[in-house]
Amino acid sequence: MIELPGLITDPEVLAGISHDEAEWAPVGRPAAALRAQSTVDVQRAVRACAEQRVPIVPRGAGTGLSGGANATDGCLVLDLSRMREIVEIDTENLLAVVQPGVVNDDLKKAVAEHGLWYPPDPASAAWSTIGGNVATNAGGLCCLKYGVTRDYVLGMRVVMGGPAGDYGTEVSLGRRTTKGVAGYDLTGLLVGSEGTFGVITEITLRLRPAPRTAAHTIVGAFHSLVEAGRAVALCTRRGFQPAALELLDRTCMEAVEEWKHLGVEPDTAAMLLARVDTPGDAGELEATALAEAFTEAGAAWAERSTDAVEAEALFAARRLAYPALERLGPVLTEDVCVPRSAVHLMLARVEETAARHQVRIATIAHAGDGNLHPLLLTPPGDDGARLAAQAAFDDILAAALDLGGTVTGEHGVGLLKRAGMEQELGPEVTAVQRALKRTLDPLNLFNPTKVVGEL
Amino acid sequence: MIELPGLITDPEVLAGISHDEAEWAPVGRPAAALRAQSTVDVQRAVRACAEQRVPIVPRGAGTGLSGGANATDGCLVLDLSRMREIVEIDTENLLAVVQPGVVNDDLKKAVAEHGLWYPPDPASAAWSTIGGNVATNAGGLCCLKYGVTRDYVLGMRVVMGGPAGDYGTEVSLGRRTTKGVAGYDLTGLLVGSEGTFGVITEITLRLRPAPRTAAHTIVGAFHSLVEAGRAVALCTRRGFQPAALELLDRTCMEAVEEWKHLGVEPDTAAMLLARVDTPGDAGELEATALAEAFTEAGAAWAERSTDAVEAEALFAARRLAYPALERLGPVLTEDVCVPRSAVHLMLARVEETAARHQVRIATIAHAGDGNLHPLLLTPPGDDGARLAAQAAFDDILAAALDLGGTVTGEHGVGLLKRAGMEQELGPEVTAVQRALKRTLDPLNLFNPTKVVGEL
Repeated sequence: MIELPGLITDPEVLAGISHDEAEWAPVGRPAAALRAQSTVDVQRAVRACAEQRVPIVPRGAGTGLSGGANATDGCLVLDLSRMREIVEIDTENLLAVVQPGVVNDDLKKAVAEHGLWYPPDPASAAWSTIGGNVATNAGGLCCLKYGVTRDYVLGMRVVMGGPAGDYGTEVSLGRRTTKGVAGYDLTGLLVGSEGTFGVITEITLRLRPAPRTAAHTIVGAFHSLVEAGRAVALCTRRGFQPAALELLDRTCMEAVEEWKHLGVEPDTAAMLLARVDTPGDAGELEATALAEAFTEAGAAWAERSTDAVEAEALFAARRLAYPALERLGPVLTEDVCVPRSAVHLMLARVEETAARHQVRIATIAHAGDGNLHPLLLTPPGDDGARLAAQAAFDDILAAALDLGGTVTGEHGVGLLKRAGMEQELGPEVTAVQRALKRTLDPLNLFNPTKVVGEL
Repeated sequence: MIELPGLITDPEVLAGISHDEAEWAPVGRPAAALRAQSTVDVQRAVRACAEQRVPIVPRGAGTGLSGGANATDGCLVLDLSRMREIVEIDTENLLAVVQPGVVNDDLKKAVAEHGLWYPPDPASAAWSTIGGNVATNAGGLCCLKYGVTRDYVLGMRVVMGGPAGDYGTEVSLGRRTTKGVAGYDLTGLLVGSEGTFGVITEITLRLRPAPRTAAHTIVGAFHSLVEAGRAVALCTRRGFQPAALELLDRTCMEAVEEWKHLGVEPDTAAMLLARVDTPGDAGELEATALAEAFTEAGAAWAERSTDAVEAEALFAARRLAYPALERLGPVLTEDVCVPRSAVHLMLARVEETAARHQVRIATIAHAGDGNLHPLLLTPPGDDGARLAAQAAFDDILAAALDLGGTVTGEHGVGLLKRAGMEQELGPEVTAVQRALKRTLDPLNLFNPTKVVGEL
């Protein structure tokens, strides 16, 4: 076994940091854990693990939803959540340099003090770390207009091995400039690689100027999920670019209301929630046009919210939908993404699947992106329901592929989507993925079995 | 030697398609060339070349500026400019599927008919192909606000070998959805890989809705390059987001005027040219604020152009600067990119370098991105001037690295920036780059020696 200062071996503590929030993904028994405080800690741990061939499972806040941070048997869990220094905020060049354990919302707050904005906003932003966001290429609500995490990562420092040198070597990838094409885009390759190529120890992020005007909120209530999906297609076709276009079904809204009493009472099957942040009169026009499109697509009602408190409550409800549903029992989370013209078809497939397998499915969606989160709910301890949910899960993945979509829009492959990924990519591209893993991590030390499976 | 239908071996024809526009990069003697008409042609060529170990140099329009499309001795030049079908324009999902030989401006025109827009706009857009743009991750004028080619590539089909299967296997990478994280980002890895991993046969591109309102043009004239650079820093610091912020020095303006008589008479050392496309009253405010910032930074004069013809002439002058200078003799093109706060420092370094080596340097720049194109001009046939220019070229690369920048912002590594790239990345990261090349192209068949050098 490896020896390192600060090594955690207490079984109860280990159990607590051995998994993320993908409740259905298998969890192994780690040999130990380490809460790294510095790059030197990471390097020392990687060197020791390489020597003893102990697999390393890096983790941030553990808010992942695909099992990417779940321990494998005999591994070292390398917790990076204490490396939470904001190293630099460069107001001249609109960028920040951070350690991986910085919480997304903490970074947002820190840069806001300088009139700057870090857009990526996964619903977990209050807890999840930038390192985890980068490892999974996290999405969120504002991707529709402002892109995903990958679009904000300029560079990083990574402790890796293989061709870079002995395991434990720290390299610097990417740049601080807005553009750059010096060699293959290794930064982009590392983003979304879920810790399978190395341990990210520092990240350079692009920032934007903070928005100067208040956003408009537009709400539409629909008698069916499919109608709401049609409204999304209409908005896309008309070229609207809201900063968010979210869908919540009645089950989600009820679960949030029961828990938090935000005063968001559902009176229809589904709600679309849009935010328009275009400044000035153009933003006014866009907000009105969006509400009109909702109505034209068959909304029971659609209106612009003139009350900032109400608008905030609506978006808070959206962000709380997942934890609210988790309170009701184990949740199996889908993350399919389909072409935007097919959102209504995908929603219909979800409803058919729920009926066919007798599974309760609540749906939240980054609808404007075509990224749907059907959440499969099972009563605790009901093994039959669990099996039915697993079958429904697979059917939904297949339906997304059938509609030209992907099995994972933003949560990552982890353990839960490995089979779906192989189905999506086919054997040739899967083989290329594995070849990259073998090249960059010849000892298969970093987060083995995740993403690419057994090698 | 390989045998293929349509093989070109005529030395004169070969000479014409053996190089791109990097006049200073070495050019080898190809064994033959093929103008592929289809994916099947590409596959057949790759198979034949793999069997005989004949290197393949893919090319589009040959407008590259780093030698990336230059022939190597004994290679097959694989010309893709005849694969120019726009396969699909999907107005429901705002995307297009194109063959690699489609010319950038042709795609722009075709999608404009559907109210859509393909933003990436290298100055070569009238000639350069999408395949070449993707291979080099081409930039352009509007990157500042709308990103580079990479930001628009959702997926592609590639004929490759190695882990994907026998050489000649076509694989499909990426997706048609707005988001997706199923496995490592191979699409992103291929973008900017300059044909060294395989031959791209089809590309799926993200589009935007066409802008609905006319843009504002703002012009500022400065008594020195350094002052113009300071104005750029001020604009960045204030969070302005123009759709373009270009710099032209007097030499560039004079060369264009002499050639095209656009009526753009330089009266100062440098000109900044900005475009603001924010719609409505917010755009008006932004345009005025930009002009004010120019003045505050010391502009001799700054104004908003109210004349659409004049505004178009100014941007035409910008696009024509490079060919106008090429008429004067061989041009050695720099493509450094520095943090935006250092643009004025980099411009000063360029001037010092010109004086030190007695080299005439004209500068155009995507100044808002910190991406500078100092163009080293040499009298035709003057070997001494050529040596001086080469020394100045290296000094400018070193200065960019010294200021925290990169040796290439958008033109790619090709042959001209290989040494600079190694200097920038260091030995560990260079080793990782080479390992990827060896893994994905074990025969070193695709565009050998480009980007990563000899293996």
